[in-house]
Amino acid sequence: LDYQHVQVPFEITLWIMLASLAKIGFHLYNKLPSVVPESCLLIFVGLIMGGIIYGLNDRSPPVMDSDIFFLYLLPPIVLDAGYFMPSRPFFENIGTILLYAVVGTIWNVFGIGFSLYGICQVKAFRLQDVSLLHNLLFGSLIAAVDPVAVLAVFEEIHVNEKLHILVFGESLLNDAVTVVLYKLFRSFCEMPTVKSVDVFAGVGKFFVVGLGGVLVGLSFGFTAAFTTRFTKDIRVIEPLFVFLYSYLSYLTAEMFHLSGIVAIISCAMGMKRYVEANISLKSHTTVKYFMKMWSSVSDTLIFIFLGVSTIGENHEWNWPYICFTVIFCLIWRALGVLVLTFFVNRFHVNTITSKDQFIIAYGGLRGAICFSLVFLLPDFHRKKLFIAATTVVILFTVFVQGMTIRPLVDLLAVKRKRESAPTVGEQIHIRFLDHLLAGIEDISGHWGQYYWKDKLEYFNSKYLQKILLREYDQPKSSIVLLYEKLERKHAIELAQAGQLGHGPAHPSFLSSSRTVITDQKLEDAPNPDVLDNMQEILARNLYRIRRTGPAYNRHTLPGDSEPTEQAKEILILRHKSL
Amino acid sequence: LDYQHVQVPFEITLWIMLASLAKIGFHLYNKLPSVVPESCLLIFVGLIMGGIIYGLNDRSPPVMDSDIFFLYLLPPIVLDAGYFMPSRPFFENIGTILLYAVVGTIWNVFGIGFSLYGICQVKAFRLQDVSLLHNLLFGSLIAAVDPVAVLAVFEEIHVNEKLHILVFGESLLNDAVTVVLYKLFRSFCEMPTVKSVDVFAGVGKFFVVGLGGVLVGLSFGFTAAFTTRFTKDIRVIEPLFVFLYSYLSYLTAEMFHLSGIVAIISCAMGMKRYVEANISLKSHTTVKYFMKMWSSVSDTLIFIFLGVSTIGENHEWNWPYICFTVIFCLIWRALGVLVLTFFVNRFHVNTITSKDQFIIAYGGLRGAICFSLVFLLPDFHRKKLFIAATTVVILFTVFVQGMTIRPLVDLLAVKRKRESAPTVGEQIHIRFLDHLLAGIEDISGHWGQYYWKDKLEYFNSKYLQKILLREYDQPKSSIVLLYEKLERKHAIELAQAGQLGHGPAHPSFLSSSRTVITDQKLEDAPNPDVLDNMQEILARNLYRIRRTGPAYNRHTLPGDSEPTEQAKEILILRHKSL
Repeated sequence: LDYQHVQVPFEITLWIMLASLAKIGFHLYNKLPSVVPESCLLIFVGLIMGGIIYGLNDRSPPVMDSDIFFLYLLPPIVLDAGYFMPSRPFFENIGTILLYAVVGTIWNVFGIGFSLYGICQVKAFRLQDVSLLHNLLFGSLIAAVDPVAVLAVFEEIHVNEKLHILVFGESLLNDAVTVVLYKLFRSFCEMPTVKSVDVFAGVGKFFVVGLGGVLVGLSFGFTAAFTTRFTKDIRVIEPLFVFLYSYLSYLTAEMFHLSGIVAIISCAMGMKRYVEANISLKSHTTVKYFMKMWSSVSDTLIFIFLGVSTIGENHEWNWPYICFTVIFCLIWRALGVLVLTFFVNRFHVNTITSKDQFIIAYGGLRGAICFSLVFLLPDFHRKKLFIAATTVVILFTVFVQGMTIRPLVDLLAVKRKRESAPTVGEQIHIRFLDHLLAGIEDISGHWGQYYWKDKLEYFNSKYLQKILLREYDQPKSSIVLLYEKLERKHAIELAQAGQLGHGPAHPSFLSSSRTVITDQKLEDAPNPDVLDNMQEILARNLYRIRRTGPAYNRHTLPGDSEPTEQAKEILILRHKSL
Repeated sequence: LDYQHVQVPFEITLWIMLASLAKIGFHLYNKLPSVVPESCLLIFVGLIMGGIIYGLNDRSPPVMDSDIFFLYLLPPIVLDAGYFMPSRPFFENIGTILLYAVVGTIWNVFGIGFSLYGICQVKAFRLQDVSLLHNLLFGSLIAAVDPVAVLAVFEEIHVNEKLHILVFGESLLNDAVTVVLYKLFRSFCEMPTVKSVDVFAGVGKFFVVGLGGVLVGLSFGFTAAFTTRFTKDIRVIEPLFVFLYSYLSYLTAEMFHLSGIVAIISCAMGMKRYVEANISLKSHTTVKYFMKMWSSVSDTLIFIFLGVSTIGENHEWNWPYICFTVIFCLIWRALGVLVLTFFVNRFHVNTITSKDQFIIAYGGLRGAICFSLVFLLPDFHRKKLFIAATTVVILFTVFVQGMTIRPLVDLLAVKRKRESAPTVGEQIHIRFLDHLLAGIEDISGHWGQYYWKDKLEYFNSKYLQKILLREYDQPKSSIVLLYEKLERKHAIELAQAGQLGHGPAHPSFLSSSRTVITDQKLEDAPNPDVLDNMQEILARNLYRIRRTGPAYNRHTLPGDSEPTEQAKEILILRHKSL
């Protein structure tokens, strides 16, 4: 037996296997996940495992290594989040998100830090040795809302898109602020005296860290898109580039002390559109599938490790400090959301309701990022207190808030996500309104989001697409793309129906006598009949266009066999109908 | 700048990126890969990179770590090889393959070892201090034909299936023999005296290592298949299990000093059939795609590393020893193939021609396995000589043999792989013959391969399928499966043709007037018209069966809307034809 030799890969594989099996286990019992969020269950599994390890070895189980977390577990989740980020609501609310992420986080850090410092002054609690700087440092790590925890809970409760993107966007973008504040206070703790110039330098760093991350991410994203232009002959390694470049963007950003999360999100959002157009359909399925798979495993591992790391002896249970931390986290977040939303609502027509505000405040879950940051703290005599407080805050937010948020959403009747995708009519109207508003903004000299969106789209189609796309022909309108997707989906369904022998072999010919409904739910519509109908109309119209098309086209010759084929078709159709 | 922090993942990502970009680069110039095998180009890239590193640092570039090779780079390639192994030719020739792999390798080891020992006795060469055991140890590592190198070259030259499987199967299965002999001689080298009981124990180990690998692999493979029964609700982690279980089988085998290569191949071959039936189509695309991608990257990295590691100062250039090693490798392999094939041909009707024998002998490429094994040798004063000899043998076989084998195959007019897949008629005949031969063998009491295949198939459908498959209904015949696959493919093509506006929207209706050709090439047939034709016939027939079916079926009600839909269809068709 030579265990040493294979130990590292063997144990990694076993951990991943455990995580996957735990996931399967939960899904075998359908009732459990509908009551308790999966994250809670996984932490619970981790707690049990930690207990077993503790019981067997009689010493603390290994804690999650911060390096492993930041270098290997976090990137897949953030990549997945960035790649599948709904870009329209994100950019529509980018101002609000940034306000919450930057101002809100700073508010929370200082609020929690100063109030905890106040608590430390109470003699009965025996905390006088915790300095203001240490409290601020603790505040900076405990204030960060965790994207992994937020995603795990909000994916299950299906609130409306705007609310979702506000909480989730904030949790992603506050990384830049947290990184800066955390590093700032940590270096202040190690400095003998803090000069005012250091404070100003810290403020300047916000912009460097955040914008630097965006720049690194975008440059890697565009390089990735450019690279996939040349993969036509070796389709099989296409998916690799998506992963390699986004991971490199994360590592590069981390290397230069920029925000890796911001970088990988920019990279994913920047490349997505071009990569999708360049790579084959199968490659794209693989990319999407693997991203989801990877992030889901990472997510599982993180929560299990959180549970395992909780067990042990590296905690100092000073309950006043811990309880007040939980209370201040709740209070300052609630206050921050109220105040910031007040200002946001003054400038927006589409305001954030008080119910939404409550969910935003309540959805501020803490998770593995805080946990990893607290372990990265330099050794000082009260580190174990901070670890204990962080652990309790995480468990409180994930268990109590995570488990009660769904009933609360039901109780408050928070506006849900609309189940159906926008109809074709709506899409056309939205597109039309975008152009209209861009025009109005241009005329009125107000450089708002529609103006910039229009300019960006122009820049994209004029320059970027020509450089980054392999077959740059002319941009397909999204309606044509939707039609293509539906046609493909339908074709596969058709083939499967034919295989199984259930449906008729060519259903699209059968539903013609139904009345034509133009403005129906298209994507993922519940009623397949309507889809068929829609498709048939499109198919018929396209056929006519194709048939009459070549006469108007200077660049293509009319197909040689076209007339014969038409004649044949008519012949066959007649033959069949008789 | 904090490079240390991200160094490990950053450098790994960069290496993979380099490998992928090199691959893209070669494929941009189509002419190069048709003359020089990709493996040679990659080694060349590696040599250049090694030269640069050597020039800049003025010390030897890092050699490929044997642990990295065996634990991380080799498994993906072998997994891919096992998963996509054509099982029919493999099992039909398993006897011959095992003979080459076991007896042939032993023959080569002792032949090369003893002849090199003879060379060492020549005083002029100054090699008298290399003992017989050391020569045998060297023989055991240099005799192993390398699956990675063989695959890289044979994938490009398209020889006939039998020849391909003989060389490739040998290269995979000789791992068990190489492992045993290598470890045996290495332990003998460290023992003061070698007793005869040790030699017998070594012989016994062959069976333990080989059969143990098969057992470990099959048990993990069946567990994997069993696990995928329960992934219906979380399709997204299905692909993971295929990778996790096969990797675990490799690691477990290595842990117990069994043959990891044999284990992972058994695992992949054992699970494939059941996993494919259990997981979704998209998961399966992801599995296949990722396996190919991973193995292709591993393969690229191995050859680049081979090149890089060649540069440096860890060589002792004793040319007589090196040259005689190359010569003996060639001679003993040629002799071995001749002698073994003589015996094989006496027992087979379908003999191995002398041209095939030549290609088998000439295709015995050495590669990264030898290279890793020679670096794993215990330190002794002539290790550098062995490293030099191994390097030269690898470069000679990969460059000289790898580059000349294609012209030789052309020159000798070796029977090529048939381009077309077997026709439906052929498939039916093969199936029929299998059953017939199984029956004949059963009656005559001769327990040959058909008899065992039949028994295995019975055991599979009676027990294994019921345990391992989720929806165990009744086995679909391969012809039905083929039809389903074609139908799906056709449907997608149809949709795409409709999208692009090139072809008519429903081409299957157009080709009806062509004459019906029943026995045509089906899978991957070059002529799409024939495919259409074939499919149309099947579709029409199925339609008729479906239409008349319900009357005879006790368990299904005739569809309510069926008659109306038929009427409608006729109406529409008539309407269209007018």
